[in-house]
Amino acid sequence: MRSNSPNGPSRRLMLGALAALPTLPALFGAAAARAQVVPLPSWNDGPAKQAILDFVRATTERGSPSFVPPEERIATFDQDGTLWVEQPMYTQVIYCLDRVPAVVKAKPELAKVEPFKTVLSGNRAAIAKLPMHDLITILTATLTGMSVDDFNADVKQWLETARNPRWQRPYTELTYQPMQEVLVHLRANGYKTYLVTGGGQDFVRVYSERVYAIPPEQVVGSAGGTKYGYAKDGKPFLTKEPKLLLNDDNAGKPEGIHLMIGRRPHAAFGNSIGDRQMLEYTKAGDGARLSMLVLHDDAKREYAYGPAQGLPASKVGTFTQALYDEATKQGWTVISMKNDWKRIFAFE
Amino acid sequence: MRSNSPNGPSRRLMLGALAALPTLPALFGAAAARAQVVPLPSWNDGPAKQAILDFVRATTERGSPSFVPPEERIATFDQDGTLWVEQPMYTQVIYCLDRVPAVVKAKPELAKVEPFKTVLSGNRAAIAKLPMHDLITILTATLTGMSVDDFNADVKQWLETARNPRWQRPYTELTYQPMQEVLVHLRANGYKTYLVTGGGQDFVRVYSERVYAIPPEQVVGSAGGTKYGYAKDGKPFLTKEPKLLLNDDNAGKPEGIHLMIGRRPHAAFGNSIGDRQMLEYTKAGDGARLSMLVLHDDAKREYAYGPAQGLPASKVGTFTQALYDEATKQGWTVISMKNDWKRIFAFE
Repeated sequence: MRSNSPNGPSRRLMLGALAALPTLPALFGAAAARAQVVPLPSWNDGPAKQAILDFVRATTERGSPSFVPPEERIATFDQDGTLWVEQPMYTQVIYCLDRVPAVVKAKPELAKVEPFKTVLSGNRAAIAKLPMHDLITILTATLTGMSVDDFNADVKQWLETARNPRWQRPYTELTYQPMQEVLVHLRANGYKTYLVTGGGQDFVRVYSERVYAIPPEQVVGSAGGTKYGYAKDGKPFLTKEPKLLLNDDNAGKPEGIHLMIGRRPHAAFGNSIGDRQMLEYTKAGDGARLSMLVLHDDAKREYAYGPAQGLPASKVGTFTQALYDEATKQGWTVISMKNDWKRIFAFE
Repeated sequence: MRSNSPNGPSRRLMLGALAALPTLPALFGAAAARAQVVPLPSWNDGPAKQAILDFVRATTERGSPSFVPPEERIATFDQDGTLWVEQPMYTQVIYCLDRVPAVVKAKPELAKVEPFKTVLSGNRAAIAKLPMHDLITILTATLTGMSVDDFNADVKQWLETARNPRWQRPYTELTYQPMQEVLVHLRANGYKTYLVTGGGQDFVRVYSERVYAIPPEQVVGSAGGTKYGYAKDGKPFLTKEPKLLLNDDNAGKPEGIHLMIGRRPHAAFGNSIGDRQMLEYTKAGDGARLSMLVLHDDAKREYAYGPAQGLPASKVGTFTQALYDEATKQGWTVISMKNDWKRIFAFE
C-alpha cells in the first residue's frame, strides 16, 4: 500500500521499526529454519514451475518492463481441487451432511422428511445420488438461521474432529504442499493472496488464516446475506440468512473479485470450469499475467479425474476437454500433479 | 497477518530486507519531514483526543489486558460527514448530476423526461427538491450500464476538474485533517483502516488510495452487481448492473462489514444515524472498543447541522437527538469539530 496521506508514517511507527532492528538477525535466524532456501522446493523443474518463477521475477524486479507496483499485486486461488482435496465430496458438503443430526434434533419433524431422511439413514450410495435441489435444501438448513458466532464455533469444532476417510487426517491437512509454496513465494514477493472459492465464504474464513495464512478479509466466496438484530440483553448480533448475495462460481468469480477486491488479479489458479472466467479475466489484463490450471492426473498419490484420463464426458464433470483446449489457446499453464509435484502433502 | 504457513517467509524476502537496510536511514529521514512528531497534531487536548490515544495504547501495548493481536486490528470509517464534507450534497450525487448531460447526449429522448429535464434546467432549488425516487432514477442512469473501466476513467476525470462551490477546491481536498491523522495514527499502530460508506463502493474506490491511503480492497460501500461479458475482440469485461447487492447504510453497515471483512471492528467512526448500527456493533465487542461520532457544530469553519444546534427535527435530518442520547448511553465519544479540532482542512 502506498502511503499517500498528507502525513506519511508517524514517528511512532519509525521508532518502533528502529527499536526492532537489533532483534532482526534473531528473527531472520528463526525464520530461516522454516524458509524456502530455494523457492518451490516441492516442485519438479519444468514449464509449470518455470512459469511461476518467471512471472514473479517479471512483475517484481525493478526495471522489468512488466513491473507491477506492490499495491497492485493481487493473486487469487480457487480452493477445492486447487489448494486442497475435493474428493470424494467438497469438504463443506461433508460438514453440512454431518450437521444434519443436530438440525433434526432441533426440529424433530424433519426426521421423516426428504432429503433429511436419506442423510440420516447413512446410506452413502443414496446420499451421493441426492439431486442438486435436495443438496441445496441441506445446505440451507445447515448453513443459515444461526448467528455468525455460533456458526463459526460449530465449524471450528467440526474441523477438530472430522477426518478424511482416505487419509484419516483432519481435512485442513489435505492441502497441497506445492500450492502452499506458491502462496508463500507470492507473498514473499509482495503479492496479496486471496481465496476465491465457490465454497461458502463464512465456512472458509473459519480456517483460512490458520491453514493458508490468508486472513478472513482476503476470502471471497459464495456469500449469503446476514441480518442485524439484537439479543434479549440488547447486544447486537448477525444472523445468517437464506439469501444468496454472491454465487462465487463461473462468471461469479470475476464479479466477486470486483465486488470484494476491486482490482483485476495478476495471477490466478484454478482447476475446473468454475474457474474459467477468473482465469480468462486475469490473463486478459495488460502486462505479465499468470493463469494456471491444476490437472488431477495422479490416481496413485491423489486422484485422476481430468479429461486427460480418457474418462467419458459424463464422468469428468467440470473438467472438460474444452477447458484444456482453452488453456492452450489462452496461454494458461497446466500443472500436472503427477509430473510437476514432487510431493502432494506436507505429511508425506 | 500471521505467517502460519509451513514454510514461513522465503529467503528472497529476507535477502530483500537485508539489502534494503543501508537505505533505511535515508527513508526515515524523508518520512520524518512529513511525520507526526506527536500523534494527532490538529487535535486540541480533550476527551476526544484522549479517547483515541488511550484506545490505541490499550489495544497495542504488550502486556495490556486489552491487547489486540495485529491481524484483528480493524478500524472502520464512514466517509461523508466523517472523513470529508457532505454539504451541500453528497459529492457522489453532485457527480451524478454533472453526468446527466452526457447521459442525455447518448439518449436524447431523455431531455424531455423528468427528472432529467429538471437537472438539465440548472435550477438548483428545483434540483434540491427532487424526491428520492427521482434521485434513484438519476443514480441508476449515471452509475450503471457502462463498463467498470469506463466508469473509473470518468470519475477520475471528473474529480480533476470539479470544484466544491464554497471552497473552490477539488472535492478530494475537503477531507478533515484531524481524521486523516486518526487514520495515520491507527495504521502506524498496526490497524487496517477501512472505509465503510453508504456511498457507492466503485465511486469511492477510484480515489480512496490517493486521498486516504486506503486501497480499493479496503473500501466497503453500497455495491451494485456487475455482469461478466466479452467485447467484440473476445476480451472479457464487467458491466455495472442496476442491481443493488449491498445497501451499506444503517443495519447494512455491520452486514457489509461481515460480508467484506468478516471481523468485528475494534474502532468505528461515524456521524449520522446511518452509522448507528456500525457504532453499536463495534462497541458491543469484548475488550477495548472505540466508537466515535463526529458532531458538525462549527458553522464558521465548516457547517453546523447536529441536534446541538437547536434546529427543528425536520431540519436536522439524520443527526437526531436520539443518536446523541445513544452515544451517551453506549459510551461512544462525541467529537466536537468546533472544540476538538485545531483546524479542519490541510489547506488552511
